[in-house]
Amino acid sequence: MTDNTSYEQHASPEVIPGLTDELIWAIRAALDVGATTEAAALASTLHVADQADLLEQLGKEQRAALVLEIRSELDPQLLTHLDGVVRGEVLEQLSPEEIGAAIAELETDDAIDLLEDLEKPKRKALIKALPVPDRVAIEQGLTYPEDSAGRLMQRQLVVAPAFWTVGQTIDYLRADGDLPDEFYDIYIVDPKFRPVGSIPLSRILRSKRKVHLNELVMKELHTVPVDMDQEDVSFRFSQYDLISMPVVDSDGRLLGVITIDDVVEVIEEEAEEDILRLGGVSETDIFASPIKTSVRRFPWLLINLATAVLASIVIAQFEGAISQVVALAVLMPIVASMGGNAGTQTLTVVVRALAVREVTAANAFRVLLKETLAGSINGLLFMAAGLAVAFLWYGDPLLGLLFGIAMVTTLVAGVLAGVCIPLLLDKLGFDPAVSSGVFLTTVTDVVGFFSFLGLAAYYLL
Amino acid sequence: MTDNTSYEQHASPEVIPGLTDELIWAIRAALDVGATTEAAALASTLHVADQADLLEQLGKEQRAALVLEIRSELDPQLLTHLDGVVRGEVLEQLSPEEIGAAIAELETDDAIDLLEDLEKPKRKALIKALPVPDRVAIEQGLTYPEDSAGRLMQRQLVVAPAFWTVGQTIDYLRADGDLPDEFYDIYIVDPKFRPVGSIPLSRILRSKRKVHLNELVMKELHTVPVDMDQEDVSFRFSQYDLISMPVVDSDGRLLGVITIDDVVEVIEEEAEEDILRLGGVSETDIFASPIKTSVRRFPWLLINLATAVLASIVIAQFEGAISQVVALAVLMPIVASMGGNAGTQTLTVVVRALAVREVTAANAFRVLLKETLAGSINGLLFMAAGLAVAFLWYGDPLLGLLFGIAMVTTLVAGVLAGVCIPLLLDKLGFDPAVSSGVFLTTVTDVVGFFSFLGLAAYYLL
Repeated sequence: MTDNTSYEQHASPEVIPGLTDELIWAIRAALDVGATTEAAALASTLHVADQADLLEQLGKEQRAALVLEIRSELDPQLLTHLDGVVRGEVLEQLSPEEIGAAIAELETDDAIDLLEDLEKPKRKALIKALPVPDRVAIEQGLTYPEDSAGRLMQRQLVVAPAFWTVGQTIDYLRADGDLPDEFYDIYIVDPKFRPVGSIPLSRILRSKRKVHLNELVMKELHTVPVDMDQEDVSFRFSQYDLISMPVVDSDGRLLGVITIDDVVEVIEEEAEEDILRLGGVSETDIFASPIKTSVRRFPWLLINLATAVLASIVIAQFEGAISQVVALAVLMPIVASMGGNAGTQTLTVVVRALAVREVTAANAFRVLLKETLAGSINGLLFMAAGLAVAFLWYGDPLLGLLFGIAMVTTLVAGVLAGVCIPLLLDKLGFDPAVSSGVFLTTVTDVVGFFSFLGLAAYYLL
Repeated sequence: MTDNTSYEQHASPEVIPGLTDELIWAIRAALDVGATTEAAALASTLHVADQADLLEQLGKEQRAALVLEIRSELDPQLLTHLDGVVRGEVLEQLSPEEIGAAIAELETDDAIDLLEDLEKPKRKALIKALPVPDRVAIEQGLTYPEDSAGRLMQRQLVVAPAFWTVGQTIDYLRADGDLPDEFYDIYIVDPKFRPVGSIPLSRILRSKRKVHLNELVMKELHTVPVDMDQEDVSFRFSQYDLISMPVVDSDGRLLGVITIDDVVEVIEEEAEEDILRLGGVSETDIFASPIKTSVRRFPWLLINLATAVLASIVIAQFEGAISQVVALAVLMPIVASMGGNAGTQTLTVVVRALAVREVTAANAFRVLLKETLAGSINGLLFMAAGLAVAFLWYGDPLLGLLFGIAMVTTLVAGVLAGVCIPLLLDKLGFDPAVSSGVFLTTVTDVVGFFSFLGLAAYYLL
């Protein structure tokens, strides 16, 4: 540590700038004047994940021009970072040979991801052209169900028998060229290749050469079956703070390993799915064409039209009352809207709690009770507020009272629906996020209009 | 590898069962008959994270009884896995000495998390009673802003100078007892303790003893400033597929390290925040009391009442028209609802795209254009659908036409608002998820009611 000059010798790592707005504008400006070489040079300073973001930010023509310029030295990793729609466009520009070369260079899980974006004939031709080991790995991978552990795992991993010493293990790692690029744990396997323990690399590095691996094995071993859903996989990773987890077949034999970076993606995807589904969108379509976007969103709007008509049919039953007391038409949307909002609050909390497994069969009833109580408290408060609004507006205490009663009724109905609808969907095996909202507003609209107009028709006329 | 008998010698790791519904029921049944020892024995088979989930699933009294039973051998990690509300209750049950012992055993970031749940006098007393090094670390940690990198980092890390060889590094790791429990990278620092490179442990293990560390340094080095917001930290981790990242002060000196497990939590938290805020809830309150829950949700409902009244004021301007053509009152909620839904779809996609940085200043206008186009296409389709509905219902072609025109107007307004509101909130430095929804429905309600009733008042009467 006295040889200070050595400090100057080390390879200074590249400082990778992030993707700034300024840089995007500069690259766009260059592309707009046809200076694609300059644009490519600017882009090449970026990390490959930021290059992918850059391509997403560009317009269609700009993107095509930039891809044309960089295709000859395209990092295959770039493709894995692209949004599906944009990736489809970029793949269109590449030749089958270029795509094949990219696939051969990627890890199995990423390669499969890419292949699944392609049309079947193109995909088959590409797989056929791959070197045999890659082909076998990919064909095997494609047999696992989508969104399963099998699709997330990489097959390259490091195993050792329990009787090896740290010294033997290190010697083996130094000698074997066919190891994964990065790994975080060494798995101890029995003679049947079943994982029986894991050892983090830091434990190996801290132990003397003569220590046996069986002394270093972690107290707990977490494995995932190859057909486990990726949502359950990501739950285990985050629940048990894992960095990597071995994947086993039905006989408990080691097939591969899932690492945290793939799981981070899954966690983001699953959360995104919940957000989007609650908003009535099936998948993110920010980069899709206007026509594709409208086609995707149409079904949800159509369902909403049907339920809105249903609510209007309820209103139509009270046309007589409305024509006599037009204030009813003015006030009724307030009731429905309040019920819908109170219900949505509850619905959101319950959907989220189901996703992170905070609500289960064991406490569902307690949650229902609590939400109903909370909803009733707010219901009573807004009954008072509603009474005041209606009375001040129309000077009619009875109208105010009926409005207030309808308000508390609808709020409580909304909260009940907010708990029951996602629980029921979950119980029936559906995603509680999808279509919860439309059921909820149907309930609150129908209850809201019916209770207010019904009460008014009975007591006011 | 021929000595097969050794296979039998290794320590077989514990098989940790997950938290099943059956187990929860069994533990609840035991607690209900006062068999707390049996319940504790069942709970002790679980991983500490699952024990935390179990406590969350129990009722208040059951939970208190179980905590009373296990408090003497409570794993401090259990506390870090608990939901805030439940943790508060558990901490109430523990003595200051027990809490102090738990804090001393936790990593700094977890300890700070725990301390922040306590009231100030209690917190101060606890910090004062800690051993000096822990106290210094925690007091230092508390100086960093909440949700900053400084709060996420742990201070223990492994550094080495670039001129060391792999052999020297391994010898150092074997000799030094004061290393973190687990680590994934070794950081190369210069004489000023500034990180200049990182080396994954797998690279060290695969290299011969005589190799110098400077030959192993990764091409890229990502660091985070200590005051960086945790959302930006988690973005970097997921963008660059990192496992750990060094934290530096304003002079670039190494302060600590953030590891992926803490970031996974942040990613989940940030996604949860977006979901909840879009649903009009400030934070998850699934385990809060009914009163606390209703208090938390009240403000949002009050805002909604105000905007609903605003929409009703619009309706009130057309009381004359409604009393003459009561069909208007029946049909008007359909227009508002369709606009609200189309707007919510767009809003959700844009809020999500902002969160994952797919929408930036560079492509905001393109997104606006695309969404408007997509909204217009669906608007025209639903104009036709609306025209048909109104015509079939009331047999009035002019009413149908006006209804259809109001429908397309409101849908387009909803989509425009769905893009512009979150972009504007983001530009102004607010979270685009929070209160986007209420602004949006205000726009769609007002436009929906005004366009339909206005057109009807002008052309029908």
